Amino acid sequence: MPATEAPKTSETVYMKGGGYYSRVNLGMRQVINNSLDLVKAAIDGMDIGGRDRVFGIGDYGSADGGTSHELFRNIIATVRARAPKRPIVVNYNDLPKNDFSALFGMLNEEDDVLGVRSYMRDYDNVYVLASGTSFYRQVFPSESIDFGYSCTALHWLSEKPGSISNHIHAVGAKGNELKAYASQARKDWQTILLHRAAELVPGGKLVFVIFSKDEQGRFLGNTGGVSMFDTSNAIWLKLVDEGVVTKEEYVNVTFPQFYRTTEDFLAPFSDPSSDVNKAGLSLDHIESRVVGCPYADRYRETRDLDSFAPAYVDMYRSWSESTFYNGLSPSRPAEERGRIVDLFYSQYEEEVRRRPDEHSMAHIHHYMLISKAK
Amino acid sequence: MPATEAPKTSETVYMKGGGYYSRVNLGMRQVINNSLDLVKAAIDGMDIGGRDRVFGIGDYGSADGGTSHELFRNIIATVRARAPKRPIVVNYNDLPKNDFSALFGMLNEEDDVLGVRSYMRDYDNVYVLASGTSFYRQVFPSESIDFGYSCTALHWLSEKPGSISNHIHAVGAKGNELKAYASQARKDWQTILLHRAAELVPGGKLVFVIFSKDEQGRFLGNTGGVSMFDTSNAIWLKLVDEGVVTKEEYVNVTFPQFYRTTEDFLAPFSDPSSDVNKAGLSLDHIESRVVGCPYADRYRETRDLDSFAPAYVDMYRSWSESTFYNGLSPSRPAEERGRIVDLFYSQYEEEVRRRPDEHSMAHIHHYMLISKAK
Repeated sequence: MPATEAPKTSETVYMKGGGYYSRVNLGMRQVINNSLDLVKAAIDGMDIGGRDRVFGIGDYGSADGGTSHELFRNIIATVRARAPKRPIVVNYNDLPKNDFSALFGMLNEEDDVLGVRSYMRDYDNVYVLASGTSFYRQVFPSESIDFGYSCTALHWLSEKPGSISNHIHAVGAKGNELKAYASQARKDWQTILLHRAAELVPGGKLVFVIFSKDEQGRFLGNTGGVSMFDTSNAIWLKLVDEGVVTKEEYVNVTFPQFYRTTEDFLAPFSDPSSDVNKAGLSLDHIESRVVGCPYADRYRETRDLDSFAPAYVDMYRSWSESTFYNGLSPSRPAEERGRIVDLFYSQYEEEVRRRPDEHSMAHIHHYMLISKAK
Repeated sequence: MPATEAPKTSETVYMKGGGYYSRVNLGMRQVINNSLDLVKAAIDGMDIGGRDRVFGIGDYGSADGGTSHELFRNIIATVRARAPKRPIVVNYNDLPKNDFSALFGMLNEEDDVLGVRSYMRDYDNVYVLASGTSFYRQVFPSESIDFGYSCTALHWLSEKPGSISNHIHAVGAKGNELKAYASQARKDWQTILLHRAAELVPGGKLVFVIFSKDEQGRFLGNTGGVSMFDTSNAIWLKLVDEGVVTKEEYVNVTFPQFYRTTEDFLAPFSDPSSDVNKAGLSLDHIESRVVGCPYADRYRETRDLDSFAPAYVDMYRSWSESTFYNGLSPSRPAEERGRIVDLFYSQYEEEVRRRPDEHSMAHIHHYMLISKAK
């Protein structure tokens, strides 16, 4: 039997497919661009030339591959220039229910899906593979990844460590409920690092960009103005009051996520006897960075509320919908669950329209560069 | 630019997903079982032990992976026994629109999707990757596949070499129209072999099971009784007469397939100066084999027409629907195209009910074992 059991996070409903994620997540490309300095440092610091074996790139939690596409095009260009004969394999990874057809369609079709010209059309000897397996397992063979990347994925926990009675997200949890989430996040961070250590070649590098809590206590949608998760929580509580959802469903609607702090990320590296250190990993660089909310920023300029409010809510919906939907009782018909989720987002949009200047989904991530010993 | 252009066969609509292919194609598992002797010969003839690098398995045209699953479980068991330390990677390949989520779901979920217990649950150090790229390109890096397998996929051509004015399938084509299909099939066979030669490790082996025409001129659905493609053709012609579909649509409804003969398969191996020979490939074994139609066979026993007719047509539909649907004018609304396709299959079912003993979809394949020089 494999050491790691099947992941618990594969849910009845995952994200919308068909490139939806890339289309509505304008902010993600900015976040990825914001990691270019670390990616450049990683690639520059690697011994790439003078070899003919495959150069393996890994993308953990890739979604439809649209947001990371330009980054990988740049990496392919750099590796090809330094080692013209090395085949390059881009290994995408996400949960089984991810829309891999959108990913392969974008990369292989003749027309430019997602407005992106596929690097497959411009580079020979480049291969694309996908693993539809949770990154809480080892998903690629040992020593097959030279450069691993992950953006806005590793804040998802391997499982929901219990319910949160007063909130929909661990950012609002207290006492033992908060402890359970912190403990799961600690365990999961180590699991992620150990599997990636196995997958990396000696001398390989990782750049991770992870939703987190910064030194000022800020996190996604909580950077001034109203807090996105508090607003969401208030709407769900109102839906309970109105008898639309049950108390049990409310408690069940919980993101299996945790926003780690710098200390959380550092922990396995700080202890010299840790398994992560023994596996040869070291943390070369870490810092938190903010990327503004492109929707809110545009609204501040245009004051066009009819553009801002629905687009803003769509972007939020693209990654939150499955959590809300799956929190509702499976005994409800799918259509009814869909209607309740629709109702939630329409109330959220009303909330945005009521106080538009208070809403912003600025991104707080920790950006880090990790190396495996040669 | 890559040497090979993007494939032309990716169509607006592909096969139904969600494991539909495996569920309705009972015959395919029998066909795959019928290839076990060649697979065993291939694996037995390989130098597997005493190594620690990855053992790569390739499945070309895998669909949802359900039909080949038992076969790969057996191969994994054999390789693991002979080389306990070798990581094993099962590389699935199909067109971008294939339902890879069904495949990864089956392999990774805890419940037994498709009634199959995933080999991932029983073997450690086994990884599953997918390539959503046409097998008319090189889809895996050079020398990464030890054993390649393909069942009931390589009869699909890389593109439709023109229309067929009097039939829906090349088996009914004549004159220059037939020549165009034969020529495309010849070219495509060589393309398939050369890409697989590049992907195979030295000493690697391929087992191919390909829909074909046997020495008695028999082929799928044409092994006595009425011919499936002639029946289909007659129904489409009737739909033209009735004004349901246009003459242009009828001509456009053409399977991009060709049923090769033994001579066709042998051609690139027979010529010592061929590129295929130069690439190191040799044909160790080839023969045509028949696998009966499980639906018709059961009907002969039970005489239960209400079970036979719809199940038989469902199985036909699982792989033919996209060709019929995509032959209809895109100017028709999707719903209308769907209705016409429904009408076709309901008329086919009436035809089966009228003369049930005449209908059978026995499978004619060529089975072959190919080796790459060490």
